[in-house]
Amino acid sequence: MFVNRMPRYEILSPDAIAVLDKGWRRIVSEVGVQFAKPEAVDLFAKAGQRTDGEIVYLDPEFVLEQVAKVPREFDIQARNPANTVHIGGDHMVFGAVYGSPFVREGAVRRDATLDDFHKLCQLSQAFPQLDTAGGVICEPNDAPLDSRHLDMIHALSTLTDKIYMGNVVSGPNAADTIAMTEILFGGGAGREAGHASIERTPAVVSLINCNSPLRWDDRMLDAQFEYCAAGQPVVLTPFLLMGAMSPVSIPAALAQQLAEAMAGIALAQLIRPGCPVIFGSFLSNIDMQSGSPSFGTPESAIGLLCTGQLARHYGLPFRTGGGLNSSQTADAQAAYESLMTLLPTFLAGANFVMHAAGWLEGGLVSCYEKFIIDIELLRELRVEFTPLEITEESLAFGAHVEVGHGGHFLGAAHTMERFRDCFYRPLLSSTANFERWLRYGGKDATERAGEIWRSTLDSYQPPPLDDAIRAELDDYVSRRRVELGD
Amino acid sequence: MFVNRMPRYEILSPDAIAVLDKGWRRIVSEVGVQFAKPEAVDLFAKAGQRTDGEIVYLDPEFVLEQVAKVPREFDIQARNPANTVHIGGDHMVFGAVYGSPFVREGAVRRDATLDDFHKLCQLSQAFPQLDTAGGVICEPNDAPLDSRHLDMIHALSTLTDKIYMGNVVSGPNAADTIAMTEILFGGGAGREAGHASIERTPAVVSLINCNSPLRWDDRMLDAQFEYCAAGQPVVLTPFLLMGAMSPVSIPAALAQQLAEAMAGIALAQLIRPGCPVIFGSFLSNIDMQSGSPSFGTPESAIGLLCTGQLARHYGLPFRTGGGLNSSQTADAQAAYESLMTLLPTFLAGANFVMHAAGWLEGGLVSCYEKFIIDIELLRELRVEFTPLEITEESLAFGAHVEVGHGGHFLGAAHTMERFRDCFYRPLLSSTANFERWLRYGGKDATERAGEIWRSTLDSYQPPPLDDAIRAELDDYVSRRRVELGD
Repeated sequence: MFVNRMPRYEILSPDAIAVLDKGWRRIVSEVGVQFAKPEAVDLFAKAGQRTDGEIVYLDPEFVLEQVAKVPREFDIQARNPANTVHIGGDHMVFGAVYGSPFVREGAVRRDATLDDFHKLCQLSQAFPQLDTAGGVICEPNDAPLDSRHLDMIHALSTLTDKIYMGNVVSGPNAADTIAMTEILFGGGAGREAGHASIERTPAVVSLINCNSPLRWDDRMLDAQFEYCAAGQPVVLTPFLLMGAMSPVSIPAALAQQLAEAMAGIALAQLIRPGCPVIFGSFLSNIDMQSGSPSFGTPESAIGLLCTGQLARHYGLPFRTGGGLNSSQTADAQAAYESLMTLLPTFLAGANFVMHAAGWLEGGLVSCYEKFIIDIELLRELRVEFTPLEITEESLAFGAHVEVGHGGHFLGAAHTMERFRDCFYRPLLSSTANFERWLRYGGKDATERAGEIWRSTLDSYQPPPLDDAIRAELDDYVSRRRVELGD
Repeated sequence: MFVNRMPRYEILSPDAIAVLDKGWRRIVSEVGVQFAKPEAVDLFAKAGQRTDGEIVYLDPEFVLEQVAKVPREFDIQARNPANTVHIGGDHMVFGAVYGSPFVREGAVRRDATLDDFHKLCQLSQAFPQLDTAGGVICEPNDAPLDSRHLDMIHALSTLTDKIYMGNVVSGPNAADTIAMTEILFGGGAGREAGHASIERTPAVVSLINCNSPLRWDDRMLDAQFEYCAAGQPVVLTPFLLMGAMSPVSIPAALAQQLAEAMAGIALAQLIRPGCPVIFGSFLSNIDMQSGSPSFGTPESAIGLLCTGQLARHYGLPFRTGGGLNSSQTADAQAAYESLMTLLPTFLAGANFVMHAAGWLEGGLVSCYEKFIIDIELLRELRVEFTPLEITEESLAFGAHVEVGHGGHFLGAAHTMERFRDCFYRPLLSSTANFERWLRYGGKDATERAGEIWRSTLDSYQPPPLDDAIRAELDDYVSRRRVELGD
């Protein structure tokens, strides 16, 4: 996995952090946070916090005591141990787009299907730049609604051998996710063995979104209770489009983000002290003219950089978005907006990066071509954020003596020894001269991306899976499907 | 103009800087630098440097003494005083693409003409994100070769009222540039008045490229002598495509870049002590598979960040490229490669940014649509690199009290007071939902860029110019055209 040893780009002064710190404290204590689940309110009340119906008024010092219980770093195990990831510190985990009801391939935009879900899992497995396919890589609209989560977890755990994200639509769905994860990590010996394994090292990470402003909803909380009780990490994410879910001010959104996330994290620690969590951030703005969400904006980049610094201030691993954009097609806008988010993601050293491949149209669309464009960006940024070794030898003084003045280095000994791997080699980008490019069809980057994802799928090899485990998984899915009436 | 008050992103350790410092010292003293102009070699010899034919072996301490004479900051005046720029410190100057023999509009790629030159000047005038059209915004292939420089300087000084870059093809061309600049700044009272004006504050800046490795060519030197003698700044730029003009190692290229630039800067100070200069950087690599130049690469971004840090270390204002890319069309690749250069340009706080709008196909093409894409990037980055004000008031606590839990901020008083200018407003990017986007023709960003440059040209207003000055300029051009036999 990628470890970002480059410096963090920090833009908040200590004074600014102090203002934001006061900000979240005032929100949680004076406005309070709503938890639409009685068990959550009870936990807070028992811990001495003032409650009024679903509203919990939090003592900031109490919140910080809970936050202090969060492990600063932890592992999430994959069924292939080589794909186990480390969360926190300089480590960065990358996952594909999450939650899109539509897919786009080339000029066609249509409802996503389970077949798309499978293909996108396969692409996620194929590219080592992704540590996970994520969870809902697209919404499999043709699968029965009540048992769809089983199809998704089954695909994620069989078509990939990387970590995956759990279902959060309801408590029972979360319980199914955990059960299937126990099977997967049980070595064919059933759920008990798997249970012990994922108790030792968590194996599923799930996205719990806040219904911002300042409200945690019942179904998400049901899922959070399941996962936290099982010691599996959750990504507690304020969902902030400034202008809609937060004020039209970046500092206000940052304070609110802290208030919501810290409250959710405190709850996680009340459910199970020491439960791993990730401080989530999904922070952008709406276009005040159209009312539509905007992504890849200057405001979102600034918010992202600040979020990283705040997460480090409070000692929390943190999550951001990856290649976010508002574009309708995999065009120039999609590319620059995505990099406008993704480059700050590296500058900030985000620990868990969702939507890092395939996101299009404000997240409504999982796009195959965009997936490849993003993989190219990830490949480049991994090189860009690898520290240079600057030594006497790296100066290649001998090459200068050899080549002299006005010559060229193409045939120099230093070049000949290194030409194979001295520079980044693109997956998608073309440096072909115009005539050669025309001869090969004059295809733009998006068309070439179409060829790459198709050929990648053609050569996809499913990762090996123990037959006993597969049979147990299949049995579980079949049984639960019947129980769920699908 | 834009002042970048955000922090610099610095990635070189003091140890690394020390290694690079030793590197350039060894190159200039042991390999030496070639100056293909006897007057240059003479100046160095008279200053006590060892010479052997055209090769000058430089004492690094002598070089640093010369570099210390460079003004850290200076102005370049524009004929419209509002467009005068400041070079150095946190100030950033942006110019359009420079030197392309071809243009692209939409699907058509063709030889550039003087009409294109005029149009691109007009676009540069129209967008305040550009401080200059640059110099050779495209090569006007249909204008007679010997007097083409007159046409270009005439266009730059009449169609725009911003600063411009001088011709560097030969000493006489440089002299013509200076003469026309004197006319432009003479207030209609002839060249003498203009001479005094541009002696007080320089008014033309010119790009002097090194024929890397380690060779400064005769014609560029002829131009440098003219400009430096007239006290007009030059951008002394090693032209480094690693693998061709420098070793396949970023540290080696950085040391070479310092050696070449410092040698050129020392010459400038011998020609006229205290002459303003800009430390130029044009640093990328060739694709070792195709042999073609690659732009927007991880290596070029790293090189750019390091260059900024080194420029500050030696107290020099510095120049980098802007939206560089290798793409053949204004597609996703063009966009991400450009931003891969442009965002580090802001992180590094480059003082003079060439090729910031319109560059395509490794610089062979000035592209109208790409011009607009780049303007959008510049607009966004200027917002992104403006420090946040984080105050108690910016937290908008009252809005939280007003909206409460699970509500929305669209109608909040805080929003209503600010919705017009609270967020970046795009020029090109679309946030339209899919149906609306389809209804408006389903145009991608490049197609929309085509509409924007055309409508911008339609509403172009030439900046006012004193009739007497215009007549003097026209006379000068007519007379010189005859003298040059065109």
